[in-house]
Amino acid sequence: MSRFMSSKYAALKPYVPGEQPRDRRYIKLNTNESPFPPSPLAQKYAAQEAGQLELYSDPWCTALTEKASQMLGIEKEEILFTNGSDDALNFAFMAFCDTQTPAIFPDITYGFYKVFAELGSIPYQEIPLKEDFTIDIADYCNTPGTVFIANPNAPTGLCLSLADIETIVKSNPDRVVVIDEAYIDFGGETAVPLIHKYDNLIVIQTFSKSRSMAGGRLGFVVGCKALIGDLNALKFSTNPFNVNRMTMGAGLGSLEDEDYFRSCVQRVKDCRQWTRAQLDALGMTTIDSDTNFVFTKHPGVPGKVFYTKLREKGILIRHFDTPRLTDYIRVTIGDEQQMAAFITAVKEILEETL
Amino acid sequence: MSRFMSSKYAALKPYVPGEQPRDRRYIKLNTNESPFPPSPLAQKYAAQEAGQLELYSDPWCTALTEKASQMLGIEKEEILFTNGSDDALNFAFMAFCDTQTPAIFPDITYGFYKVFAELGSIPYQEIPLKEDFTIDIADYCNTPGTVFIANPNAPTGLCLSLADIETIVKSNPDRVVVIDEAYIDFGGETAVPLIHKYDNLIVIQTFSKSRSMAGGRLGFVVGCKALIGDLNALKFSTNPFNVNRMTMGAGLGSLEDEDYFRSCVQRVKDCRQWTRAQLDALGMTTIDSDTNFVFTKHPGVPGKVFYTKLREKGILIRHFDTPRLTDYIRVTIGDEQQMAAFITAVKEILEETL
Repeated sequence: MSRFMSSKYAALKPYVPGEQPRDRRYIKLNTNESPFPPSPLAQKYAAQEAGQLELYSDPWCTALTEKASQMLGIEKEEILFTNGSDDALNFAFMAFCDTQTPAIFPDITYGFYKVFAELGSIPYQEIPLKEDFTIDIADYCNTPGTVFIANPNAPTGLCLSLADIETIVKSNPDRVVVIDEAYIDFGGETAVPLIHKYDNLIVIQTFSKSRSMAGGRLGFVVGCKALIGDLNALKFSTNPFNVNRMTMGAGLGSLEDEDYFRSCVQRVKDCRQWTRAQLDALGMTTIDSDTNFVFTKHPGVPGKVFYTKLREKGILIRHFDTPRLTDYIRVTIGDEQQMAAFITAVKEILEETL
Repeated sequence: MSRFMSSKYAALKPYVPGEQPRDRRYIKLNTNESPFPPSPLAQKYAAQEAGQLELYSDPWCTALTEKASQMLGIEKEEILFTNGSDDALNFAFMAFCDTQTPAIFPDITYGFYKVFAELGSIPYQEIPLKEDFTIDIADYCNTPGTVFIANPNAPTGLCLSLADIETIVKSNPDRVVVIDEAYIDFGGETAVPLIHKYDNLIVIQTFSKSRSMAGGRLGFVVGCKALIGDLNALKFSTNPFNVNRMTMGAGLGSLEDEDYFRSCVQRVKDCRQWTRAQLDALGMTTIDSDTNFVFTKHPGVPGKVFYTKLREKGILIRHFDTPRLTDYIRVTIGDEQQMAAFITAVKEILEETL
């Protein structure tokens, strides 16, 4: 830190992204990316926009907003597009948390929530998941703060039912509840329709996973008009042009190509089911996943050993070296070939180790 | 504002971007965009990246950073790429200002400085420009706060010399000085080389204007390693993937195509000179411009009349309705044809009005 940095940030611990090594070609099952390229229509629109970058992007993302709001059955003023869903989360922490309103989230969840809270000097409570990694919804009812729940959760892959989400939202009429649905297209039921019933709910989604646009940076947030208005005020006070032309084009192309989207999601789900069955057969314990990854462990092989040996074999997965998670590995669901290679490697490791 | 919005933002007045009307096709001379498309190489690289959006973008912008640092004669740790230069400015306000360290900037300058200060509850001083719109550098020497100077300044187009910038930086050894060089490629001398002499200087530039990438969102900030480290800590605590793959590709293509860049900048400068001469001949008073716009007025026609009548004729320019600026109009320098149409329209307006 330089001698000029504001003391507010003295204790800042920035988020550490999943590794992107360049020393060799890996099978990348470590950052929950899609194994498929974006829709051809997304690529086409993006390339068209690249030809007119001299003009500012539309700060209201009009075309995207119209298409998405129509698809979601909401009004245009009930959605805001952002530079990835991290941008939306950042605005939500800024708008709805402060020293009087702490942030409340599980102890095991998306690692960025804690970073956003620390960035904004926002007090926060990390509520332990139950022993089986499920959420006790009672922990999030009648809370003193703003609730952040990733649904499905990461890195567990577990999902709350829509009824459970509604119970939480209903019990906190004077607090905002933020449901982070980064993985919702792979399982579970979206809470978007609840925004018409509750004025204290926002739902965040992303194009990174199910729409193969992690490198394009596009997310959105849905909520009643007043909440979206708050987030818009922050957007127009930080970076009105936060979404560039090419990303808007790619996003629109993706929304217009629903067949491609559905077939990609279905292939990931099929690969997930196949992978799960293979892991079961190998004696691994795998948590039920509603996402594009599985969280799995073996009684005889520590997570770190899997991580290291898979890496040597050219396969990257994610290992979290914290007490409750260290036995596990988080494995992104790739395509059929990638998952076959992963299963073969796991078999070899079990043979070498046990 | 919803009932949930943090009271911190009760007085927030978001930035208002220049208008982007869709009711008809206009000659757009209102938002300082380039009249030329981005380099063909920029378009090509962007389209290539659109085909692999499923993979996260490189949060360290390695390829761009290597190319730019080599071109600027600095080290890789002395530059940080951002989602437009607004992103860099936002980080600078966050890092180097707080309740103890006010922000200091001219009363007439980029309108976003005030918004960033208000967003962060940062006290600020707006120092009046002199009667002729020049900066009195004594106002920025030995200041109690962090200095923000757009050089060249907007909407005046005036530039401080490098010697003046150095005087300001040198006189504030315990305060950061931020030089916002959004328009530097069109005139004036960059302060980048001074970063090796002073540890309290950062310089911000953008690809929006001279590199025809306003819609691509790419900016960067240069400074000593410690200052760039501070800004990086904020980037990795807000949005590590703030620059998407396509924008990185377009940026790299732009840097690799220096001939195209130089020829676009030269054409804008030539058009500026021609426009200035025409305006002089029409009895307009035009401030010397080192940018891709001119700030001009006529003794007999208020700025607002020009704005309204030009709009009726299909030409958009910018008018600022504040006491010191209301006589003037800010006109972006377009291509030869656009500027000829603008001059013809001004002639007609003068004939109709006077």
